[in-house]
Amino acid sequence: MVKYLKQDEAINIDQELFNVYKFSVDQLMELAGLSCATAIQKCFPPISHQKVLVLCGPGNNGGDGLVCSRHMQLFGYSCEVYYPVRTDKLLYNNLMHQCETSGVLVSDSLSENMSTYDLIVDALFGFSFKPPVRAKFLPVMNALKKTNKPICSIDVPSGWSIEGVPDKDAINPDMLISLTAPKECARSFKGKYHYLGGRFIPKKLEEKYQLELPAYPDAECCLKL
Amino acid sequence: MVKYLKQDEAINIDQELFNVYKFSVDQLMELAGLSCATAIQKCFPPISHQKVLVLCGPGNNGGDGLVCSRHMQLFGYSCEVYYPVRTDKLLYNNLMHQCETSGVLVSDSLSENMSTYDLIVDALFGFSFKPPVRAKFLPVMNALKKTNKPICSIDVPSGWSIEGVPDKDAINPDMLISLTAPKECARSFKGKYHYLGGRFIPKKLEEKYQLELPAYPDAECCLKL
Repeated sequence: MVKYLKQDEAINIDQELFNVYKFSVDQLMELAGLSCATAIQKCFPPISHQKVLVLCGPGNNGGDGLVCSRHMQLFGYSCEVYYPVRTDKLLYNNLMHQCETSGVLVSDSLSENMSTYDLIVDALFGFSFKPPVRAKFLPVMNALKKTNKPICSIDVPSGWSIEGVPDKDAINPDMLISLTAPKECARSFKGKYHYLGGRFIPKKLEEKYQLELPAYPDAECCLKL
Repeated sequence: MVKYLKQDEAINIDQELFNVYKFSVDQLMELAGLSCATAIQKCFPPISHQKVLVLCGPGNNGGDGLVCSRHMQLFGYSCEVYYPVRTDKLLYNNLMHQCETSGVLVSDSLSENMSTYDLIVDALFGFSFKPPVRAKFLPVMNALKKTNKPICSIDVPSGWSIEGVPDKDAINPDMLISLTAPKECARSFKGKYHYLGGRFIPKKLEEKYQLELPAYPDAECCLKL
């Protein structure tokens, strides 16, 4: 059975990928974002879910969301990105530029009415999140809680504590794409689609952390759990 | 009909991707290498072609080969890389390190007998190649010409002039994976499998160069031409 990661384990695996295995953030974010876009395409294809709002937070989870939206645009979706707090790093500036030059609209103001979209991708907070949600993100969290549109969360449903059980008023996404391995809180996920993405973990690292990852079929970059 | 690129066009598109669209080499090489590994998996699956030799040149084509071999290793292949002339740049050093820590054997000496492998991946020279082949690469080119094992060339069959017709004694790969768009010389390709990979060209760039790319299905990263 696949292992559910505690917050520290997720942080340590991430650090090893960069420091020991010498991957760049660019590389892994590209593969993670692509696997998310691919999983979403399988569950919510563009023919029925054309118009997509991607909510991007300030950290790596938001970066995965930026990459995901660019690939989704290539797959035939019409993507808009809400990106209120921008990280002033070259990688993030470039990811945003790549989105915009690929036809994705990037904005720092939130659409009052999410009902004009067919799908919401939640890339606000990842495995480093510690509650409470910052004031800046309360409006978007409230909008997420209210919407009746399908929500797909990347790696962690935003606002959930990584190891705990979600609050009563937490969001309940329809889809969760766990990257590398599910986090502890994914045990509480009750939505329809749970996917694993981020197929880049070397065998030795998988063994060290006893991840017990299921076998991805063929050359697939994501897998239904 | 898909366009066949002249050498200058291929170089210009590459430069625009980096300078205008602000992609990093890391990003595009990761996507290109992954699309190659995926196409190879479709035509020569690991169950019948376990043992693979990947020949990597000193430039970006060799970098694509390094990335391709790492993904192939994750797909269940046993890969060895011949990498005789190493580029002393951080990206290349890291790509090599990622291969080695993923179980891919990287060596600068050429196996005398290629017949112990089930498949040869040719990532020696890409679209920047201008003849003649440098002395250092003559032994591997000769071994490639002699082998009776299937050869898969990444982007350009090595030794072929990009715009011309291949010499009488040129290699004849069984598979060609054209990245971005086929190069002029691909018109002479007579092998069994011609794939298109590198699904990352923004619509605007495709239109500017009138690439007339065929529609990739769903979320596929490669496509049989």
